[in-house]
Amino acid sequence: MSILIDNIGELVTNDEGDGLLGIRRDAALVVEGDRIAWIGPDTQKPAADRRIDAQQRAVLPGFVDSHAHLVFAGDRAAEFGARMAGEPYTGGGIRTTVAATRAASDDELLANASRLVGEARRQGTTTIEIKSGYGLNVDDEARSLRLASELTTETTFLGAHVVPAGHDPDAYVDLVRGDMLDACAPYAKWADVFCDRGAFDGDQARAILQAAARKGLQLRVHANQLVAGPGVRLAVELDAASADHCTHLSEADVTALSGSSTVATLLPGAEFSTRSPYPDARRLIDAGVTVALATDCNPGSSYTSSMPFCIALAVREMRMTPAEAVHAATAGGARALRRDDIGRLRPGARADLTVLDAPSHLHLAYRPGVPLISTVLHNGVPQ
Amino acid sequence: MSILIDNIGELVTNDEGDGLLGIRRDAALVVEGDRIAWIGPDTQKPAADRRIDAQQRAVLPGFVDSHAHLVFAGDRAAEFGARMAGEPYTGGGIRTTVAATRAASDDELLANASRLVGEARRQGTTTIEIKSGYGLNVDDEARSLRLASELTTETTFLGAHVVPAGHDPDAYVDLVRGDMLDACAPYAKWADVFCDRGAFDGDQARAILQAAARKGLQLRVHANQLVAGPGVRLAVELDAASADHCTHLSEADVTALSGSSTVATLLPGAEFSTRSPYPDARRLIDAGVTVALATDCNPGSSYTSSMPFCIALAVREMRMTPAEAVHAATAGGARALRRDDIGRLRPGARADLTVLDAPSHLHLAYRPGVPLISTVLHNGVPQ
Ligand SMILES: [Zn+2]
Ligand SMILES: [Zn+2]
Repeated sequence: MSILIDNIGELVTNDEGDGLLGIRRDAALVVEGDRIAWIGPDTQKPAADRRIDAQQRAVLPGFVDSHAHLVFAGDRAAEFGARMAGEPYTGGGIRTTVAATRAASDDELLANASRLVGEARRQGTTTIEIKSGYGLNVDDEARSLRLASELTTETTFLGAHVVPAGHDPDAYVDLVRGDMLDACAPYAKWADVFCDRGAFDGDQARAILQAAARKGLQLRVHANQLVAGPGVRLAVELDAASADHCTHLSEADVTALSGSSTVATLLPGAEFSTRSPYPDARRLIDAGVTVALATDCNPGSSYTSSMPFCIALAVREMRMTPAEAVHAATAGGARALRRDDIGRLRPGARADLTVLDAPSHLHLAYRPGVPLISTVLHNGVPQ
Repeated sequence: MSILIDNIGELVTNDEGDGLLGIRRDAALVVEGDRIAWIGPDTQKPAADRRIDAQQRAVLPGFVDSHAHLVFAGDRAAEFGARMAGEPYTGGGIRTTVAATRAASDDELLANASRLVGEARRQGTTTIEIKSGYGLNVDDEARSLRLASELTTETTFLGAHVVPAGHDPDAYVDLVRGDMLDACAPYAKWADVFCDRGAFDGDQARAILQAAARKGLQLRVHANQLVAGPGVRLAVELDAASADHCTHLSEADVTALSGSSTVATLLPGAEFSTRSPYPDARRLIDAGVTVALATDCNPGSSYTSSMPFCIALAVREMRMTPAEAVHAATAGGARALRRDDIGRLRPGARADLTVLDAPSHLHLAYRPGVPLISTVLHNGVPQ
């Protein structure tokens, strides 16, 4: 089936057109099956089986959320409330989520993750990465990835999220890069390590990531969220697709990123929800680093599924321009997943796109908090 | 017709119940016509014509947005984009909106305001105040209020928004408190003045507000957004229902508010969208001042219609607890409009409420940017 989208006020292509976003005006677009077949002037539009009148509103590539933790059970609203009220909280933090996740059935975990994927899609996200990391044993990590693989192709093994209670760190590293990796690799495209203070150090992270690479997994790294540690430089050293968080960076980190093909993925929802200082996006962009925006959706530190919210935060708090933020949430995310079939609109690309209930991409930052996603096409199918 | 809402996980009443929010668990609620008829334990629920199963989710009073500027034409997205990019902008600011508003037809203005009211309602707002202030002449101010009165009972005459280009300030004040007030009073419940640097000084504001009070209008004041000027103390002196913004306050301002029945209405969307420092909500709350939250929805400085977004900002940026923020967005807004039939759920109150797609009010701050409004009842009618 073919679909014509016409009467588009502003078409963000991230390809041929004006400026960083490759904007075209008075354009039309044709989808054939799950691909974009044609883009051109509205006056030259061909016929199609079905028509969507954009009514002079903006059409954008679907958002690419390259960092999300969706396989878990329970929530931590009480912990959040206590933190925001400045009250002591004696709950278990991530251990609470690990215990709830292990205790949940497959159906419960899949239903919760599906709910969040649906919520994200209604907010314009057409590609979402999903990590394990709340199982932290061989069976529950493998199960988490098997369930994630029912929802996305972008599955990430994060057995090295944290050392579970009562485990020797080095023994746990050996488990992660041994039996756990073996059990998880069939379901995982990516491997990731939380390389930061209180989690895994540079040598531990390197050992795990190298073992994963030998198994054929591609790499990404939780890096430099809490301190300016070795994570970012390790990501560059191993040619990871992305170093995620990048909140605390040394000059050497920025230099390393700027000479690499590793994307800096910024996750302002985490800084919002933990009242932490935001990463310095301008410093990265000005150094020529490719920046992506993602939600970090998880029940502990960033329970948002909203890419529009992250765009608004990036503009307000990280001094990205609206165009830079929209680019980072679409083409940037695609780069962070090393995908060239998404994140931009051009013939041959996947037909993943959104029609905003607004005339311009600017409104995503100009109208913060307002649900502005009117129509979503995913693989060419209206959602 | 009666409606039973049962299986409620958390009922926020702002009345009898636990804590600031008067929370009841395992409660049910019956609506008769446009009023709440009964609240009690789920085990004792009566029959009704219709049933809404809350599925253990949270039920809250509808949000009361006591400060919005919805009668205008056009938008100022380009101005916003330039400001966020740090670029000079040579457009006309508010003059752009005044010119577009004057040029628009009644139908265009009403359609735009209706769109925003609908958008707000889908986000849980069941009462919204609407100001004039983009007409700035007798006919266009009166027209703005006539149109606003088709959408809300909470209409506010804001002829004293800014001195229009080419007018002598004192002559304009005389116009506002003379012919313009006469033309607008039939459509306005409230009068408001922008008493701040670059707008109207304390004496001008007092003259206008006193004239409006003599005409039977109740008072509210845009005060202390830009500098610690006379606005807040004037609001208290005149027993205005609310002093709005309160971003820059002297100790005398806080003392005056704390001994008054004037609400401090905080508008964090404006600080978000202009990259300004946020008001100090804690100082006000700790001094015993009643705080309300509102959107300030307008095309120049805060184009959000989302009360959930304002709640999340209040918690992140103004150190309000989630409970304080939800209270300020419901009961606080009702106080700022001197209404006792809204903002709380108890027998006899208006049946304005929302069912969240979440188990607790905490999620409004815990899940920033995520559309969490599942069902809205306005005057007892599901929307
Ligand atoms: Zn993460
Ligand atoms: Zn205002």
